[in-house]
Amino acid sequence: MTVTAPKGFRAAGVAAGLKRSGALDLALVVNDGPSSAAAAVFTSNRAKANPILWSQQVIADGAVSAIVLNSGGANCFTGAQGFQTTHATAEGVAEALQISAGDVLVCSTGLIGEQLDRDALLSGVAAAAAGLGPHGDAAARAIMTTDSVSKTVVVEGPGYTIGGMAKGAGMLAPGLATMLVVLTTDADLPAAELDRALRAATRVSFDRLDSDGCMSTNDQVTLMASGASGVTPETDAFTLLLVDACMSLALQLQADAEGASHDIQIHVRGAASEDDAVEVGRSIARNNLFKAAVFGNDPNWGRVLAAIGTTSAAFDPYAVDVSMNGVRVCHAGAPDRPRDDVDLSPRTVILELELHAGDHAAMILTNDLTHDYVHENSAYAS
Amino acid sequence: MTVTAPKGFRAAGVAAGLKRSGALDLALVVNDGPSSAAAAVFTSNRAKANPILWSQQVIADGAVSAIVLNSGGANCFTGAQGFQTTHATAEGVAEALQISAGDVLVCSTGLIGEQLDRDALLSGVAAAAAGLGPHGDAAARAIMTTDSVSKTVVVEGPGYTIGGMAKGAGMLAPGLATMLVVLTTDADLPAAELDRALRAATRVSFDRLDSDGCMSTNDQVTLMASGASGVTPETDAFTLLLVDACMSLALQLQADAEGASHDIQIHVRGAASEDDAVEVGRSIARNNLFKAAVFGNDPNWGRVLAAIGTTSAAFDPYAVDVSMNGVRVCHAGAPDRPRDDVDLSPRTVILELELHAGDHAAMILTNDLTHDYVHENSAYAS
Repeated sequence: MTVTAPKGFRAAGVAAGLKRSGALDLALVVNDGPSSAAAAVFTSNRAKANPILWSQQVIADGAVSAIVLNSGGANCFTGAQGFQTTHATAEGVAEALQISAGDVLVCSTGLIGEQLDRDALLSGVAAAAAGLGPHGDAAARAIMTTDSVSKTVVVEGPGYTIGGMAKGAGMLAPGLATMLVVLTTDADLPAAELDRALRAATRVSFDRLDSDGCMSTNDQVTLMASGASGVTPETDAFTLLLVDACMSLALQLQADAEGASHDIQIHVRGAASEDDAVEVGRSIARNNLFKAAVFGNDPNWGRVLAAIGTTSAAFDPYAVDVSMNGVRVCHAGAPDRPRDDVDLSPRTVILELELHAGDHAAMILTNDLTHDYVHENSAYAS
Repeated sequence: MTVTAPKGFRAAGVAAGLKRSGALDLALVVNDGPSSAAAAVFTSNRAKANPILWSQQVIADGAVSAIVLNSGGANCFTGAQGFQTTHATAEGVAEALQISAGDVLVCSTGLIGEQLDRDALLSGVAAAAAGLGPHGDAAARAIMTTDSVSKTVVVEGPGYTIGGMAKGAGMLAPGLATMLVVLTTDADLPAAELDRALRAATRVSFDRLDSDGCMSTNDQVTLMASGASGVTPETDAFTLLLVDACMSLALQLQADAEGASHDIQIHVRGAASEDDAVEVGRSIARNNLFKAAVFGNDPNWGRVLAAIGTTSAAFDPYAVDVSMNGVRVCHAGAPDRPRDDVDLSPRTVILELELHAGDHAAMILTNDLTHDYVHENSAYAS
């Protein structure tokens, strides 16, 4: 059910012909209300795709009636023609649903620098609008690119529901990762509360996922509330439930990262601030040498220390403890238990750092660097 | 001849038994004067190896009589025992040559977090001291780790010579790259002038080499001047010659980067400042997706724009021109000539960006991300 699990939402997923394979490539999610409150966060990349430029205007008033998403092309760096395609897509949805184009968010994902087939896209929009129903699963499949599985979530609150779908498998880095995420709820909350909850939830979930350090041009996470449950939860309680939904989707994205053979959890503790903990974690998540070593099941903790030494976080590199899968291999900047004691064969790798510089902590999620990662990303355009 | 090409220098390269293979693994370079002026630059990584901590003290007075370098172990994060090993190495050289240990630089390279075999090291020092001569080539081979070839240079000035050797194949990132470099000259210049020349030369050569974004704990570039030519050049003219020598070595390092199949030159032009140009170039050099695309001969210029959009440099992403191997594939943020016109099959790839934001420029050197890179770095410790 995913995005159609909460009351007040319909969805569709169709094959518009944007993917050469003929697979589903266009999703439409409609909020039938009574509320049309919504919030969205966007990539922090300065190179923003046309649908981002459009959607940032749409969300400004906090009201959204529908969101249309296509795979098969990012519509980024496609000039005026590309922006017109995004605009025409929103207009197509508006016409089919008898709503305002200014209440229609647009998302695109795929190759940068290629024009989308506008006719195919608009035909797909018409077909999706005609096929709307409880089709959250089809919508979730329609936004997949190199994803091997669709990512969905449903969590239940007291009297209301949150549903969600996500796509993302490569170019996963914070701010956000390369992801399109649509979250729906039948809770009744105003746009400002949704915005606060969404920013709080993405900060500790999607923004902590850093598969390959590469930031996309098209990321968008949207939350729409229909109010159809008639329940108005406390924002804090709603936020916790939303964090749960977002973390579930983030872990699904990590588990399906392109070519990965290990899911790495980097737990940084004893930091002087949360920002420091995040910076330290990210420096490891972006270190190709460490990530290649994990691929080879090599507990090369020296590369961890070499990575964190490049940060400006407050700690003494010679006071740091490092554990890998429960074995403390480095204590106070010197060798501790033998590296041969570490078993890196499980898919999940737990890397723990104690900085001894304070009381703050953060977890960063990443993956190893593999032959398959290189292969998939060398062949993406073909 | 390399480091022994200038008058006043002797060198040796011996097998001390630090490498399991039995290959040469210890180099000694001695300055017989009359001058002992020297300068050195070190890694900017806060996680510094024991030989770095030692050498930073030695260079403080601008006088160096000898430098000893070992491969087969980085002596980093090895605690007090590791620092004592570095100290003992310098003492060993001092005793053999009847000089002060405070005039002996020490460099190490290899795996982090493992103790060096001190007895083997000291035996090697004694053997090297006994075998000193015009053996720059053997010294250059003794500092190799995963290098497939030794890197050497000799450039001639008016009445004086600069010689050099370098090692480095992985973990190549600025500040410096993972490199040990020894430059020698028989020019007669005081330490302060050598320091100024060396910093100017490394800034535009080794600091512009960014193979994989990973910064080492052990980097050191040393320049020693014997004054044996009796010639005191203008510092500016000497600096230009030194840049030539450093750039030659940097290009040799790039060409031998672990597992690389393409050498990528990133020319950033039209930047508002040189710092901006460098930041933009580095953002591309560290983008795994772009580098994997180059490995696959895929001119995916969208990934270039997605990378530079993450920088804080002053430019409009929608005003940028991008050319690959002479074909302008992106003009003003929109597609220009077809990507199929780009031939990425040559080893050297020329990526040119025009930011249209000013008059500054910089070149960054990097490599593609390949199966072999992943393989070599997953198996390093074994």
